[in-house]
Amino acid sequence: MIVQRRGDDAYETPMYEGAGRIGVDWYFRDSTRLAVNTMVYHLEPGAEEGEHLHLHGDDASCSTDDADELYLVISGEVVMTVEGESTVLGPGDAAYAPTASRHGVRNVSSHPAELVLLWGRPQV
Amino acid sequence: MIVQRRGDDAYETPMYEGAGRIGVDWYFRDSTRLAVNTMVYHLEPGAEEGEHLHLHGDDASCSTDDADELYLVISGEVVMTVEGESTVLGPGDAAYAPTASRHGVRNVSSHPAELVLLWGRPQV
Repeated sequence: MIVQRRGDDAYETPMYEGAGRIGVDWYFRDSTRLAVNTMVYHLEPGAEEGEHLHLHGDDASCSTDDADELYLVISGEVVMTVEGESTVLGPGDAAYAPTASRHGVRNVSSHPAELVLLWGRPQV
Repeated sequence: MIVQRRGDDAYETPMYEGAGRIGVDWYFRDSTRLAVNTMVYHLEPGAEEGEHLHLHGDDASCSTDDADELYLVISGEVVMTVEGESTVLGPGDAAYAPTASRHGVRNVSSHPAELVLLWGRPQV
């Protein structure tokens, strides 16, 4: 069985010029055969992932490939923004950002928040 | 923005002849373009997903397609078994069950547990 424990592949980084730093656990980064990348984001109060987009060939893109992205809140509360529209997500809530949409997430609460992030090339 | 709230696509079911019932939230079941299915499992104490496998063309397979499966614990504690090997997973821990491996998960603790499940065809 392939097992990864919390912290086995973890780092902390500012993200897309967002405020503060985000703690990241990246799961099965080299071993997965699923067609998505799987991460957990840890956002302290005030931390944010700056708005960004994924679109092949676009100068503003942060990735060379197209990517759809799914955000699923594990704990705490965040504000998710996609294409200028914002909503509050709590535990068990999720948002989906299609390729080419500008999106980002912020913790404007007074408690830590955690999310699962999945991203990969859209199947069309 | 496409948003799904906890409970929007939820059901409860026994799973692969495991004990008890599992609460399932299935995310973006019809709208995702990612090449994985995304679920959250809610396991009360004593609940289990019976052991099963995914292998195209195998009579014992519970799916018609090959599928790799990733289990990531959100909260609580579970026992994960893959090919007869068992380990305890806590929050932030994850296990990966490749196509054709027999696997299942049990909550043998006295508290509820939640996991994110991802499965899809392996990229080879």
